[in-house]
Amino acid sequence: MQYPTIPLAQTLILLFKAKEIQHIVISPGSRNAPATIGFTQDRFFKCYSIVDERCAAFFALGIAQQINKPVAVVCTSGSALLNYYPAVSEAFFSNIPLVVLSADRPAYLVGIGDGQTINQRDVYKNHVIYTANLKAQQDLELAAETTSTSGSTDHLASLDSEMDALQKQNEIEINNALNAAISKGGPVHINAPFHEPLYHLTDTLAVNPQIIPPFKQSGAISLSKINDHLNIWNKATRKMILVGVNPPNSIEQQWLNQLAADPSVIVFTETTSNIHHPAFFNSIDTIIASLNDADFKALQPEVLLTFGGLIVSKKIKAFLRNYKPKTHWHVDLHQANNTFFCLQTHFKTTPNQFFKTFLPETKKSVASSYQRYWQDVKTHRLQRHDLYLKEIGFSDFIAFHTISKSLPTNSILHLGNSSTIRYSQLFKIAPEIPVYCNRGTSGIDGSTSTALGGAVVQDKQTVFITGDLSFFYDSNALWNNYIPSNFRILIINNQGGGIFRILPGHKNSENFDNFFETTHNHTAKQLAEMYNFQYQTAHTNKELVTVLQDFYEASDKPKILEIFTPRTDNDKILLDYFKFVS
Amino acid sequence: MQYPTIPLAQTLILLFKAKEIQHIVISPGSRNAPATIGFTQDRFFKCYSIVDERCAAFFALGIAQQINKPVAVVCTSGSALLNYYPAVSEAFFSNIPLVVLSADRPAYLVGIGDGQTINQRDVYKNHVIYTANLKAQQDLELAAETTSTSGSTDHLASLDSEMDALQKQNEIEINNALNAAISKGGPVHINAPFHEPLYHLTDTLAVNPQIIPPFKQSGAISLSKINDHLNIWNKATRKMILVGVNPPNSIEQQWLNQLAADPSVIVFTETTSNIHHPAFFNSIDTIIASLNDADFKALQPEVLLTFGGLIVSKKIKAFLRNYKPKTHWHVDLHQANNTFFCLQTHFKTTPNQFFKTFLPETKKSVASSYQRYWQDVKTHRLQRHDLYLKEIGFSDFIAFHTISKSLPTNSILHLGNSSTIRYSQLFKIAPEIPVYCNRGTSGIDGSTSTALGGAVVQDKQTVFITGDLSFFYDSNALWNNYIPSNFRILIINNQGGGIFRILPGHKNSENFDNFFETTHNHTAKQLAEMYNFQYQTAHTNKELVTVLQDFYEASDKPKILEIFTPRTDNDKILLDYFKFVS
Repeated sequence: MQYPTIPLAQTLILLFKAKEIQHIVISPGSRNAPATIGFTQDRFFKCYSIVDERCAAFFALGIAQQINKPVAVVCTSGSALLNYYPAVSEAFFSNIPLVVLSADRPAYLVGIGDGQTINQRDVYKNHVIYTANLKAQQDLELAAETTSTSGSTDHLASLDSEMDALQKQNEIEINNALNAAISKGGPVHINAPFHEPLYHLTDTLAVNPQIIPPFKQSGAISLSKINDHLNIWNKATRKMILVGVNPPNSIEQQWLNQLAADPSVIVFTETTSNIHHPAFFNSIDTIIASLNDADFKALQPEVLLTFGGLIVSKKIKAFLRNYKPKTHWHVDLHQANNTFFCLQTHFKTTPNQFFKTFLPETKKSVASSYQRYWQDVKTHRLQRHDLYLKEIGFSDFIAFHTISKSLPTNSILHLGNSSTIRYSQLFKIAPEIPVYCNRGTSGIDGSTSTALGGAVVQDKQTVFITGDLSFFYDSNALWNNYIPSNFRILIINNQGGGIFRILPGHKNSENFDNFFETTHNHTAKQLAEMYNFQYQTAHTNKELVTVLQDFYEASDKPKILEIFTPRTDNDKILLDYFKFVS
Repeated sequence: MQYPTIPLAQTLILLFKAKEIQHIVISPGSRNAPATIGFTQDRFFKCYSIVDERCAAFFALGIAQQINKPVAVVCTSGSALLNYYPAVSEAFFSNIPLVVLSADRPAYLVGIGDGQTINQRDVYKNHVIYTANLKAQQDLELAAETTSTSGSTDHLASLDSEMDALQKQNEIEINNALNAAISKGGPVHINAPFHEPLYHLTDTLAVNPQIIPPFKQSGAISLSKINDHLNIWNKATRKMILVGVNPPNSIEQQWLNQLAADPSVIVFTETTSNIHHPAFFNSIDTIIASLNDADFKALQPEVLLTFGGLIVSKKIKAFLRNYKPKTHWHVDLHQANNTFFCLQTHFKTTPNQFFKTFLPETKKSVASSYQRYWQDVKTHRLQRHDLYLKEIGFSDFIAFHTISKSLPTNSILHLGNSSTIRYSQLFKIAPEIPVYCNRGTSGIDGSTSTALGGAVVQDKQTVFITGDLSFFYDSNALWNNYIPSNFRILIINNQGGGIFRILPGHKNSENFDNFFETTHNHTAKQLAEMYNFQYQTAHTNKELVTVLQDFYEASDKPKILEIFTPRTDNDKILLDYFKFVS
């Protein structure tokens, strides 16, 4: 096998391999050639080439999200790595182990007007869990040249030992960065200065880097802490469990069943919670959108237990801030957000570990009508929901209804942000289907790329539902040689940012159309042709139902289905829905 | 006129107007609604709506570059502003006054798991000349609520005075940021927390912000400093002037003529230097690519005088680092890069002011054969250049030759990075044509958007030449409602990153094709159709000449001309050129 000649590049390749970081998403460049050569020469690595770094990073994030292991992106020096930043911040708030390896010039060539050179050190400071600013041997050599007048043996020996120390320090930094990604789950940045020549190869390794194992958090919780909380739990007649973004299959069904069976407990979930039980409330806004003060008081929990990442529903956040629970406990191995300004306890463990420890210790359920009451509300709302579908014309609302029913149970669903993720909360999605959405930052900037990254590491079919603005925003996602033929994109094209029509803006003025809704009449037709997707359209529910009949079946090419809905009807239909179901 | 109700939003609008920041590029969002409403309600502002923030920021940069005044980009909270970062770094290294106004949540809603919220404060720290982290009144009110138990008069008076102080502080911060952009020329970041309600309007202003005038640097240089250097200048028989990126019409021709007439001076320029004289050397690599050690010694200057921004030619940088001048002086109002590790003097003034002060004081030129000798080399090279054109087949090289001759003298030329900017150095471009390229970071990420931004504020026709990878990278640039019909794009499509074939990589292996050259067979046809451009192609020089005959003439739609060159011939033709001309 051949290696890059640069010891730092060898060290990186060896440590990435030792840490089993297999997926490497590379963007073309010259400064990163030593890394590119190293990764692509070793068949252990599965390398992907993606030109647009913004897409590359979201693609890598999509892979990491599925395999739950670090995935690396590798780019050249200059502004390249800034294009990674949207995905880095998403990884930061979604706790996804994205490893950014940016090539840099040696320090003596930074800040002197060399081309394609920026201030890369610590550039993601606000949004990474570790930064390794590696050092170049060349900088040491140059420093040694300037300080030494003689080429004395002492001096050379001292340079040698400094070189060794630098190599050790780089090894520790790389270990630290990768270990942070592995054990904490979040983005890390490794900035690696490479000196010329960049393209040379060798058959022999010059380094044998130390491998430091990652720290593993036990997630054990103390019995005394549990006992304190058991008492409150056992007595409380109104306990609410609210679940944010949560990976599929992370909680044993027996604990969910036990919660569902407790009359004093209600469990609010979202599509991205990826937990299911018939007794859970999986459409929060349908339940609470039309509540009045008395209702809210009836719903106000004594104990609020949350787990998972960010919560989609703005309404539940507003409700819980206004009608604060007596106590709020959050379960997460690493962190807890004080989302409702009443957080009292952070159980530093996984939700499954927490339930496994906690639930067996709880007493027989306290008498309560809490769940029963809200189940009745839910039943009423769902009846009204079904009635409403019969009353309205084709719209975003109907399109989501039809799509939700069509999804194959053995597929994986990715959702775009803004309207898409919000609409999806209102419809039943088969519990077998894992659901993903970039809710860390809730950006529209990389949803297609993320879905595609997910698709390449899954045998199951990946289906991606998106709005038109998100789709066009990330159109370069399709500039990708790894798109599986079973990948499916459903675009709800309502000719603009439909979400803005739902917000309290000043609709139907020229300023509103241009600067908020940003209306347009583009379609995905040409992009589909350019990137070799099969392209279909639907303008009515009938057309949609027809196209969906064989849309998910095996095909030679991936497919795009673009669904055109009436821009100016959608907002009214959605806002009326919440009144209608009450 | 109507204003947003939020005092901070009013303050921003009033201060932007007072500072004559007229062009406002807005990306849709809800958190930035107060700013969007404010800017779009006042006809003083020329507002643009662009969805993809990466494109929006480069578009704004393109405007600012032409008008040489600050231009603002306005976005919502969350990852939106991270998409500005590539353009922010380009503005930083190209000294372009780009004003980023990012909307944020009030501090109490940051870091608690709210949607579309990241750590925006100081996020561009490495690449802005000023950051104004503004404060929200709501945060003060909340802090007051928590500390006060009573609603006493004292307490309310104290809150009032704190509110006043906060308003004053915000005013100063905004003034500071805008003044930095105006007087130093570089990107600044204003992070503005807006609280709900975001969409409310009012007829009355609640604020009357203080306007602090910008500090104006005199650029005067002391006579004693000049005298010290005159002595060196007058004696030196080999003086080299090397000009980086430099705005058109910034130096009076009389000083350029005087330099050209001095036999001891040679002036090396690039297309982006935007200065011209028949005696100047405008194709550096053609002159120096084939020089040997003896030649380099003959070329080595005693005095190196540089001005302008970054230098394209890698060869001249390598030469001057290896054959250092005795002294290096740089002329720039603000900064000086020690590019060749021998910088001795920074004249803090504009190049024109420097020449106006310095040149009249110089003695009659010293006897020297320096310029004469290299003029003879140049003559020889240009003869060989013309011969070479007759020897080679259609290629990037021939395409650039043909395009260069075709450019209308009353046009403005924008160049993509990588191959495009490098090839363009080898051909004569009419001196009347101003030339621009994003050389601050030399990224391929926003060249089309930058050219488009330039085009919308110029009556003259803007022509943009780009490679295929740069063009596809910034394909969302075309998602823009402001494209003038006289805008022209010429894409040299060599089916990949041609630059990598010129670099010392390992050509013609699968790894090389995939991970360096990143070959593809996409064309711009579909994007042209999608975004309503007229689309033409050329596969031979004859076709190219024919299409160019009326390509620049007035038309209903903007036009794209895609020129297909033979991928595997281009590198050999270019590398052979440097041998041939020697």
